[in-house]
Amino acid sequence: MKKHYLLAPGPTPVSPETLLAMATPIIHHRSPQFAEVVAECRVGLKYLFQTKQEVLILASTGTGAMEGAITNTLSPGDTALVVRGGKFGERWGEICAAYGVNFEAIDVEWGRAVQVADVAAKLKANPAIKAVCIQAHETSTGVNHPVKELAELTKSLPGTLLLVDAISALGAFELPMDAWGIDIMVAGSQKAMMLPPGLAFACLSEKAWEFTKTATCNKYYFNFSKELKNIQKNTGAYTSAVSLVMGLRDVLRYFKEATLEKIFAEHQLMSKATKAAVKALGLELFSQEGASDALTAVRAPAGVDGQDVVKLLRDKYGIMIAGGQAEAKGKIFRIAHMGYIGNFDIVMIIAALEVVLNELGYKAPYGAGVKAAEEVLFGGA
Amino acid sequence: MKKHYLLAPGPTPVSPETLLAMATPIIHHRSPQFAEVVAECRVGLKYLFQTKQEVLILASTGTGAMEGAITNTLSPGDTALVVRGGKFGERWGEICAAYGVNFEAIDVEWGRAVQVADVAAKLKANPAIKAVCIQAHETSTGVNHPVKELAELTKSLPGTLLLVDAISALGAFELPMDAWGIDIMVAGSQKAMMLPPGLAFACLSEKAWEFTKTATCNKYYFNFSKELKNIQKNTGAYTSAVSLVMGLRDVLRYFKEATLEKIFAEHQLMSKATKAAVKALGLELFSQEGASDALTAVRAPAGVDGQDVVKLLRDKYGIMIAGGQAEAKGKIFRIAHMGYIGNFDIVMIIAALEVVLNELGYKAPYGAGVKAAEEVLFGGA
Repeated sequence: MKKHYLLAPGPTPVSPETLLAMATPIIHHRSPQFAEVVAECRVGLKYLFQTKQEVLILASTGTGAMEGAITNTLSPGDTALVVRGGKFGERWGEICAAYGVNFEAIDVEWGRAVQVADVAAKLKANPAIKAVCIQAHETSTGVNHPVKELAELTKSLPGTLLLVDAISALGAFELPMDAWGIDIMVAGSQKAMMLPPGLAFACLSEKAWEFTKTATCNKYYFNFSKELKNIQKNTGAYTSAVSLVMGLRDVLRYFKEATLEKIFAEHQLMSKATKAAVKALGLELFSQEGASDALTAVRAPAGVDGQDVVKLLRDKYGIMIAGGQAEAKGKIFRIAHMGYIGNFDIVMIIAALEVVLNELGYKAPYGAGVKAAEEVLFGGA
Repeated sequence: MKKHYLLAPGPTPVSPETLLAMATPIIHHRSPQFAEVVAECRVGLKYLFQTKQEVLILASTGTGAMEGAITNTLSPGDTALVVRGGKFGERWGEICAAYGVNFEAIDVEWGRAVQVADVAAKLKANPAIKAVCIQAHETSTGVNHPVKELAELTKSLPGTLLLVDAISALGAFELPMDAWGIDIMVAGSQKAMMLPPGLAFACLSEKAWEFTKTATCNKYYFNFSKELKNIQKNTGAYTSAVSLVMGLRDVLRYFKEATLEKIFAEHQLMSKATKAAVKALGLELFSQEGASDALTAVRAPAGVDGQDVVKLLRDKYGIMIAGGQAEAKGKIFRIAHMGYIGNFDIVMIIAALEVVLNELGYKAPYGAGVKAAEEVLFGGA
């Protein structure tokens, strides 16, 4: 028997309890029964987003919510500022281009976080910028951008929004929407939210809702004003993805019970342990700064192709991590700390890494990485 | 204990086997394991759509696929012809308007099917019409439009496509895409496909793919060309809704094994039985013509509000059917014959209808409807 393990940055493992919650009989999306479920989710989502605003539930992946963030607040000919430090930063720019929104880009070396001063300079040089588009965690590089500091900039500019892709961030680390002054935060179900792919979320500040009143970008399916009116009545604009929403209620109950504080601490511990372990094996992190607690991106050692690490783990041992994307392909591999995983899954993946690195000709002393991980996770022996 | 029954026109009941197929552990959307699942779905979808073309799998509800059908084939300023004989016909027009596509409308009385001659006259009067937008089954009225005959018209016009919303039609009755010459057929998971909501499908003829080359409507998430390239590699443009796709494989195996011919015959039999039963109770069908095998829309008898029938069934007996929408609200109620239901579910809903009609003051002799249904379903006693 080959047992399968999933430690990729989305989709992530879903707990058996949540899987069974989603396997309950289908209920109608416009029924009192389902309205109760949505009502409970609305409260739970506000807790998770740390906001007083309504969180919209969309039947799509996170990319759909990113598209909606642009099309619901901007108009063709408007200018956005896009921070591109990885594949998902590029996506913001692609969406702007697809809808006739002009954008200036700050190109950040993959593996680095944007400099707040660079964003400030751009905003000063061009007061017409109506939105700063960023990733809280750039999944392709394992880097967190300085969202809190960027929000400090945009908060003081009445004509500029901060749009944050929190798809692989929400639920993994601290990202208090209201306290920091984020204007739109979008998320996806299949990362730290511990659900299958298929739901996206968008939450708008009062300032962002003001922008929706004048935004003329074309939109129909991703119409946030229409979704707002519907979720206030505990339903959706179109047919809700009811089985995924049943799962959503289940995970939101868990988040509330476990508390965000404890969940963030758990992610941080798994992240520290993984980072300590790969360093103990003589490997380097890909992230030069802002290393995320959601993910550890590791530089493949000299002579080893990062894709071979991924393939050997997957094909020989049934363990799914992620390789590098686009320009990072072959150079890195990525181990996620999101979803239904525990501390011993970290021990497992580090042990597996020791094995495959040796098989690929890189001398990694058995147990050296595991020892470092154990020390972080469980204290000194 | 109040047992729950679902006979609404989407979402529909999902079989326990499919629910459990979706409850298997999450696999990565870019893995050989998942590629095998998608490869099998591609074959099964072609069988279901009766086409040689690729069927795209989208993470959204059917409305997203309708939007994509417009934005991927038309440009702002183009003209479409929209048949509006119910709520979903109106949606085609709303999508056109949202993307700057002009449209002419043929307004059909709710409960009636469009006249082919009326469409032919419009097409003759305005050769600039680039798309005819129609529902195979207008869910809000229970009427099938004459898709086969409309395709005869558009087939001979190189500059005009036939866009068919088959969301509540595909899998319920005969709709052979290639044989009839339909240019785009869109579907949703939560009707006769017997899956939860959350997946949409779009299939384009060669002629429609030609139109995509020049279409300039804004689009990003619903980019059919990008999806085509990805599904040809057994994956999706964005993160696939993997758990729903596991369910999709399961139902497609069922469709193949049971055969479309037999499945359509079953829908037809349940539809005939329901229609005979409501007539035996002295009720009238709402559909004046083209009564669909997917659904029976019934006119509420004089003195009875259709919404009260729905609410009493739901709140007192746990049975979910659908009421009328928009201008049909209160006037009708709708019983679906789609999803994981069998002949005795039809007997059940007719018996329930006899009970609630009497409670609402309409004299419906107990057993009269059931008798008529039994005779159709099981032959003479």
